Amino acid sequence: MDQVDVRAAVSRLHGRVRRTPLLPLGLPQAGTRQVFVKAESLQLTGSFKVRGATNFLAALSPDVRERGVVTHSSGNHAQGVAHAAAAFGVPATVVIPEGASELKVRRTEALGARVVRCANTQAAREATAQRIAEETGATLVPPFDDVRVVEGQATVGVEIAEDLPNVANVLVPVGGGGLSSGICAALAHMAPGAKVIGVEPALAADAQESLRRGRVVTWPAERTTATIADGVRTQAIGALNMEILGSRLAGVVTATEEAIAAAARFYATEAGLVVEPTGALSLAGLLRLLAEPGADGVELADGPTVVIASGGNVDPARLCAIVTGGVA
Amino acid sequence: MDQVDVRAAVSRLHGRVRRTPLLPLGLPQAGTRQVFVKAESLQLTGSFKVRGATNFLAALSPDVRERGVVTHSSGNHAQGVAHAAAAFGVPATVVIPEGASELKVRRTEALGARVVRCANTQAAREATAQRIAEETGATLVPPFDDVRVVEGQATVGVEIAEDLPNVANVLVPVGGGGLSSGICAALAHMAPGAKVIGVEPALAADAQESLRRGRVVTWPAERTTATIADGVRTQAIGALNMEILGSRLAGVVTATEEAIAAAARFYATEAGLVVEPTGALSLAGLLRLLAEPGADGVELADGPTVVIASGGNVDPARLCAIVTGGVA
Repeated sequence: MDQVDVRAAVSRLHGRVRRTPLLPLGLPQAGTRQVFVKAESLQLTGSFKVRGATNFLAALSPDVRERGVVTHSSGNHAQGVAHAAAAFGVPATVVIPEGASELKVRRTEALGARVVRCANTQAAREATAQRIAEETGATLVPPFDDVRVVEGQATVGVEIAEDLPNVANVLVPVGGGGLSSGICAALAHMAPGAKVIGVEPALAADAQESLRRGRVVTWPAERTTATIADGVRTQAIGALNMEILGSRLAGVVTATEEAIAAAARFYATEAGLVVEPTGALSLAGLLRLLAEPGADGVELADGPTVVIASGGNVDPARLCAIVTGGVA
Repeated sequence: MDQVDVRAAVSRLHGRVRRTPLLPLGLPQAGTRQVFVKAESLQLTGSFKVRGATNFLAALSPDVRERGVVTHSSGNHAQGVAHAAAAFGVPATVVIPEGASELKVRRTEALGARVVRCANTQAAREATAQRIAEETGATLVPPFDDVRVVEGQATVGVEIAEDLPNVANVLVPVGGGGLSSGICAALAHMAPGAKVIGVEPALAADAQESLRRGRVVTWPAERTTATIADGVRTQAIGALNMEILGSRLAGVVTATEEAIAAAARFYATEAGLVVEPTGALSLAGLLRLLAEPGADGVELADGPTVVIASGGNVDPARLCAIVTGGVA
């Protein structure tokens, strides 16, 4: 974790991304415990991903950066990379598999990126992005398993620690582990007493299994793609992410699909925030730990608690289904 | 306006209501102009109304306050009064006419207030509240035409001026005139160069007509109740509000029902915020002034511009209709 230079990322991102608000959350189940939401749903591009992408691009040498960047993503990383590239005035190509949300395709294009479609397999995504990198000289921007990306996401943790120095718990969704390992790296220095707790859908709990076994475990795509939390369908966490999470994460608690949808519904109907299912995962995890202390071997510490709403990009039809009580 | 003591209200409300964030709004139509939203939708009870109600109760003598308060409202003022009374530990009765949103009835009751229903006419509302005041010794909390209520709403303007000292324009919805006159009173001292611009639905533009004629004009309920912006269906602004608005407001611009719905849709689908139609009115007005400079005789000043999202309480079914492009 020592190579993660969070302070350098704070400097690089200054003025390039938003400092998002830490908002009080009136959660009846929390009793007298203070709960806050770190609203990365209000970040540029609607998710934290723009932090890691911007830090990655900012750290490239200018001549390398000018040749452009390429990535593959079916979600928020696509928009994060497209936004960062546009901000630096360099070309971006984003490989988006068939079947991805057309809203995300349109938004990625609206940010000025070239979108290339491919078959919906991990192999096709990687091969297509690799071919484009070789053809154009563009640099591949990894979604999570990269020190510059982790540093960028870590700035979310810096802002939490600055705004709430006595934070006791931070709950964070775990997909590939970019955001969660960034939070761990930031709080290790700035709030060493705080617990960082990961939250995964029960359908995609590969990080929980990896941490229990002490090695990266890959889950089958048939399971992980079944969750509504489309930002954490990743089948395995990254190697760097595993190293950091293994040394610092207090544990991972899982949430059912119904609990994830209920948390997203709470945000929209009670808290005034549009949060995508992946972003609502941390609240679903907190509600489970409040109802079942010690669930999945995780205990909350006493004190102020933060849930990270990692993103807010949700199709209107899905948002409708969520607020009216459906899940699909 | 001299009797409006905004500083006293700031002290009374400290620690009793939320300081809401001023959030950057990525509005393509604004070009290089900076636009921010003052998100009172994230206030306690989901609207600014709790500020005026809390200031009113805080300024009562303790023996008067202990006898409780009563009000009549079909909307956010009900929850504001219920919340303020609960915070002071005194009883509240809220008269809610038949036909009001059941969501708002439930939420008012959940805040501990006694809800009394009455026929859906202004006369029945006032008579019922007056009778309860006489029977119980409770004090009537007026919704807008009151110096303590205006002072409380003025604290929204104080926060805007503190967070954005060079603000050039503030757009605010106008119903009875409580919030808009409060903003005028606050900015008269703290940002005297800023323009305060009112926004009304074209269906309920009684304040625009009142200001043009120089006297309070009442519009028929058949018209004003037809707007989806249910927080500004008021038929006439208050006398105190008229006095303040007449001396300070730069003008009133109107918005169509379609424009109000489109603004609410933008908040939910592009900005991550659930904003009720009344709260979206100010953005609808800004979009009209950007597209038609000088509309309704109102010109924007150059410089940073704030739209006040006054509330976020919207039924799930209405929110669905808004995000998917319907209006009803």
